[in-house]
Amino acid sequence: MSNTFVVIGGDAAGMSAASKARRANPDLDVVVFEKGEWVSYAACGMPYFVKGDVEELDDLVTVTPETFREERDIDLRTGHEVVDIDPETQTVTVESDDRTFEQAYDDLLVATGASAIEPPFDGLALDGVFTIHDMDEADAIDAYVSEHTPETAAIVGGGYVGIEMAEALSAHGVDVHLFEMLPHVLQPFGEAVADRVEDHLRDQGVTLHLDTAVSGFAGDGAVESVHVENDTYAADIAVVGVGVAPNTDLAEQAGIELGPTGAIATDEYGRTNHEHVYAAGDCAEAEHVVTGDPDHVPLALTANRAGRAIGQTVTGSPTPVGPIAGTAIVKAFELGASRTGILDEQRAREAGYDPVSVTITASSRAHYYPDGSDLTVTLVADRTSGRVLGASLVGPEGAKRVDTVAMALRSGATVSELQTADLAYAPPFSPVWDPVLTAAKVLKGELD
Amino acid sequence: MSNTFVVIGGDAAGMSAASKARRANPDLDVVVFEKGEWVSYAACGMPYFVKGDVEELDDLVTVTPETFREERDIDLRTGHEVVDIDPETQTVTVESDDRTFEQAYDDLLVATGASAIEPPFDGLALDGVFTIHDMDEADAIDAYVSEHTPETAAIVGGGYVGIEMAEALSAHGVDVHLFEMLPHVLQPFGEAVADRVEDHLRDQGVTLHLDTAVSGFAGDGAVESVHVENDTYAADIAVVGVGVAPNTDLAEQAGIELGPTGAIATDEYGRTNHEHVYAAGDCAEAEHVVTGDPDHVPLALTANRAGRAIGQTVTGSPTPVGPIAGTAIVKAFELGASRTGILDEQRAREAGYDPVSVTITASSRAHYYPDGSDLTVTLVADRTSGRVLGASLVGPEGAKRVDTVAMALRSGATVSELQTADLAYAPPFSPVWDPVLTAAKVLKGELD
Repeated sequence: MSNTFVVIGGDAAGMSAASKARRANPDLDVVVFEKGEWVSYAACGMPYFVKGDVEELDDLVTVTPETFREERDIDLRTGHEVVDIDPETQTVTVESDDRTFEQAYDDLLVATGASAIEPPFDGLALDGVFTIHDMDEADAIDAYVSEHTPETAAIVGGGYVGIEMAEALSAHGVDVHLFEMLPHVLQPFGEAVADRVEDHLRDQGVTLHLDTAVSGFAGDGAVESVHVENDTYAADIAVVGVGVAPNTDLAEQAGIELGPTGAIATDEYGRTNHEHVYAAGDCAEAEHVVTGDPDHVPLALTANRAGRAIGQTVTGSPTPVGPIAGTAIVKAFELGASRTGILDEQRAREAGYDPVSVTITASSRAHYYPDGSDLTVTLVADRTSGRVLGASLVGPEGAKRVDTVAMALRSGATVSELQTADLAYAPPFSPVWDPVLTAAKVLKGELD
Repeated sequence: MSNTFVVIGGDAAGMSAASKARRANPDLDVVVFEKGEWVSYAACGMPYFVKGDVEELDDLVTVTPETFREERDIDLRTGHEVVDIDPETQTVTVESDDRTFEQAYDDLLVATGASAIEPPFDGLALDGVFTIHDMDEADAIDAYVSEHTPETAAIVGGGYVGIEMAEALSAHGVDVHLFEMLPHVLQPFGEAVADRVEDHLRDQGVTLHLDTAVSGFAGDGAVESVHVENDTYAADIAVVGVGVAPNTDLAEQAGIELGPTGAIATDEYGRTNHEHVYAAGDCAEAEHVVTGDPDHVPLALTANRAGRAIGQTVTGSPTPVGPIAGTAIVKAFELGASRTGILDEQRAREAGYDPVSVTITASSRAHYYPDGSDLTVTLVADRTSGRVLGASLVGPEGAKRVDTVAMALRSGATVSELQTADLAYAPPFSPVWDPVLTAAKVLKGELD
């Protein structure tokens, strides 16, 4: 059993592991090295801070460093960067402002997170060009908006971050142009979601440039324009949100193996190829519940859950980190969009399935009950086994109902089982057949 | 294969079966006998008609008789009462205004529904005393409220109907007194729900009389007061909603067996003890997904689903009606309350389980995101197997998340599986750990 548990990285995975390990074993030394100053913060909340829905950046901090140190008795060292791991001697080398030292561990968790990808754009260093990769950057965007009251924004990337930032900047009266290289926004959500979200973004005054590759920004000190293949648009502020990449340099240097996705390979307990080195969160792979293959889905719940499980494992209660389904939900102005599992036909085929898909639109409430709205559900299943593979939902209300399908995926349920789940009905909440059930009913008809 | 499919009862189960059978086999004769004039109506919508949220009673009709007859080619006979079933000769005897005749069937569906229980109260026949058992009664309540503008209402029964009618009458400015014999309202939802709903009803100005048995009503022609053991309260209108009982007389006369609940016993295809006689909807039992025992939960989805499955079965595609979980959801003014599965410890023990239960309260959204609210989740599991047995939820938003647990029940999932379902998170929709996951996490801790 561990006497010293060292954690590299003080966000979701790291602090969940540290907290759980401490609760499980009060005699354990728990040391967390975080190279920055922020710990345990809700990165997903940053767009809402920029928008103004969240007043203080500090509101996004779930637990303060003081609480970790004083109430949870965790030796949390911010401003401390781990620069080397030696799995043979079970030590890490740590740099702080004033010194470099070694720290021994019995068990180590690598929770180094991910970084926003910086594409090779011209003018990325101009004032007013931002990625949204950490709390300081969120603060900087907020300050820039206040100080410069931009009239036009260029958002590069039509994923969550791009869409959430479109909403945030529009709320400040900024005229938003959103650039996406692919034919659709929210690519992992599939076309049925993209169609409705794109219509809605346009209704909200966002100008969409789909199938459009940005080459860079220009300006005199500060950004003034964004360049695409044959065009230039004015932009007083730019936000680049084209995805994240796992922070794996430190692990790689130490001989910790990466998996097929480029993130750190782990077993079902979050263990790397070194017995006493674990990895969790945005830097690590996890097992996909549908394909059984390693996948890299850097999202908050995955990180929290894996961290917590590893905290249990290192204190003597081996706990699987659990599979992931790539479940995600995003607010796009007045719409909610969600997805889970495998929607992409090609990917389903690669995993050995014969995918069949249906898309239906049904009311979120009883047809006669006020304020219901159209919820569009796409459901995918395997023709041979009937197993549910994935789903997406989009509408002004009800996108969270994707959880029903996420649970079905966790159980390996078939469409018949989903169709005969006894979901809740009353006129203010659902039609008699919840839209998820209607989709299952129609899909079952296709499979029979 | 059936040439003539006869259905007794033109509401959810009956019309679902008729419609499905017709679509599956265009050559089939499909005859529906409905003794009243209303078919395929949303009984659950009646309180919202009384409240004023739904303008016309006709809005509650899902499909009109004309559509069934003309577009769906179903021989729908309203005002026709089946008075006898002869399973030996496979005929039913039918009475209409002008004649009595026999109708032969190859397959028969008994979908006679349920009736509101009329307790042995004094003064039940007074003007202004209503049960809410059908559309005409909803119309009568609405008319009575308009004509008499009652100042005080007595609602007897703290189940769904009572609570929905409390909301409906309060919306008309009526001072509502709600009487419940048991110590709590919404008994099948458990105490955690009852506590919050009771507080909220009081906040909304409803006077609760719990543990209070009504003996009857008094008045001169019209109701003026309600009597309980040692007290009398003014009441200008009274609504009695103390439950429903299955309409089984016709079936019993024909030698169709009832089950332990008093409703018609059926097999997994909805078949009764007579091979060509099926039963579905509020008059029939269904198999409980947790206990495996027959249960009687007269709700709309059960009826629709069973009817549809029987429509498939009689046209040559044997289709199980599917199990039920007793899932229910109800709006109580600004609160939603839901339940699924087995919450009652005694009942869990009778089914062979060793129930362990936790109740947690967590925010419906990220803690820093506006307009989140407290969602209280109770989760019950079996100590030995870890199997999830049931859940309840209550709060201003999120009660529909009971569906996640309903899906878990359908799959026979354990708490570990529920806890590691990849549910959707983004700040506007949920905390990182959805409250259902938090409940599972805490319950898992209790089980370990």
